[in-house]
Amino acid sequence: MKRLVLLSGGLDSSTVLAWVKSISLAGDEVAALSFEYGSKHNESEWAAAQRVAEFFRIPVERIHLDFVAKLFKSDLLKSGGDVPEGHYAADNMKATVVPFRNGIMLAIAAGYAESRGFREIYLANHAGDHTIYPDCRPEFSAAMAKAVESGTWDGIRFIAPFQTISKASICAIGVGLGAPLDLSWSCYKGGAVHCGVCGTCHERREAFQLAGYEDPTEYLETPPLPVLESAAKELGV
Amino acid sequence: MKRLVLLSGGLDSSTVLAWVKSISLAGDEVAALSFEYGSKHNESEWAAAQRVAEFFRIPVERIHLDFVAKLFKSDLLKSGGDVPEGHYAADNMKATVVPFRNGIMLAIAAGYAESRGFREIYLANHAGDHTIYPDCRPEFSAAMAKAVESGTWDGIRFIAPFQTISKASICAIGVGLGAPLDLSWSCYKGGAVHCGVCGTCHERREAFQLAGYEDPTEYLETPPLPVLESAAKELGV
Repeated sequence: MKRLVLLSGGLDSSTVLAWVKSISLAGDEVAALSFEYGSKHNESEWAAAQRVAEFFRIPVERIHLDFVAKLFKSDLLKSGGDVPEGHYAADNMKATVVPFRNGIMLAIAAGYAESRGFREIYLANHAGDHTIYPDCRPEFSAAMAKAVESGTWDGIRFIAPFQTISKASICAIGVGLGAPLDLSWSCYKGGAVHCGVCGTCHERREAFQLAGYEDPTEYLETPPLPVLESAAKELGV
Repeated sequence: MKRLVLLSGGLDSSTVLAWVKSISLAGDEVAALSFEYGSKHNESEWAAAQRVAEFFRIPVERIHLDFVAKLFKSDLLKSGGDVPEGHYAADNMKATVVPFRNGIMLAIAAGYAESRGFREIYLANHAGDHTIYPDCRPEFSAAMAKAVESGTWDGIRFIAPFQTISKASICAIGVGLGAPLDLSWSCYKGGAVHCGVCGTCHERREAFQLAGYEDPTEYLETPPLPVLESAAKELGV
């Protein structure tokens, strides 16, 4: 069995990779695919993806999508406005959505997989993504899985093992599996160290806190986390 | 209503564009999206797409997918082997399949559409494509439509108006709607004129013949067409 993991270099995809490695049997192959689409944090992500792939001793291929920065609108892109600060699931974070990004990455991964004999594609979308990313929701995943399976000769499967769990649970799984979370990168701002205040830094800090593990990440700032209802519920406060 | 047509410059997509123009009301907008993915006939296709877009006085944007030629396997690509000759639906034509090409183009079109306010995306996949292109079949189209609708904030719709009809019927529709079929390009070999013998030239010649219209295309060769069972059935012979 050859499995392909979409690896951004973040906490979630690094943990999916650890999970896929953990289910692999003798003779199985795992490889990673990474995408460059003009985001502000693309080089930090790519460096992290390479570090994580090296940790697991698997090959990682990088695909450049020049058309995204040129033609799409999102504040996550270098061509867009400033990255907003605050909680990841807050309404102002919608500005960081890159339209149909997961659909595009999965479609390309499907063609790549069919060209190279991979039978399964893994993506790390999770329950916390659902609020602002329509292409992270279970309805999307189910439809896309059917499109990939019916649209390829090999009937390639798209699997989203974390789509019903929170990032905090992913963090717990990652720590449990020995994933190198310290090598992963989340910050949307793409500075030398994690900013600590953008949406995805908030989410990362909150995940370690909720999971009850020490956060190995170096942050520029660590103001108190605004606890949203959903997180409060998970914390039981 | 803003509608986006995937326009390769071939007979089918030129007719879909004519059809979309024909359903448009005052104030509606139509634009076209074209893809360059390293096929042997890419420049002939692009020249045709521009001619057809100009005929309908609509803008056409071209998106370059450099990774396809670099990483995918297909004899349709400059990086692949020779384009096979014979009937379009014959088994040896599978070598010209670009894995999950429609999935990739539709996913990118969905992101582009959401960035620019288009609400509907049109693709010219048809019944004759089903044999060798899994990503032209109704199961694929239905799943992909659901993925695009559920994965975008605007609930963008993907419509394949010709998916249940043959290329001959498309040809008849095109002639009926006054589509500039003489400006369209089909040949996979990408020479100065249509070769007349590759799979898609066969299919084009057969379509005009079955529809009962004079073929305005200049061909290098026009050997007798091998009539497949499906075509014979449609001809009633």
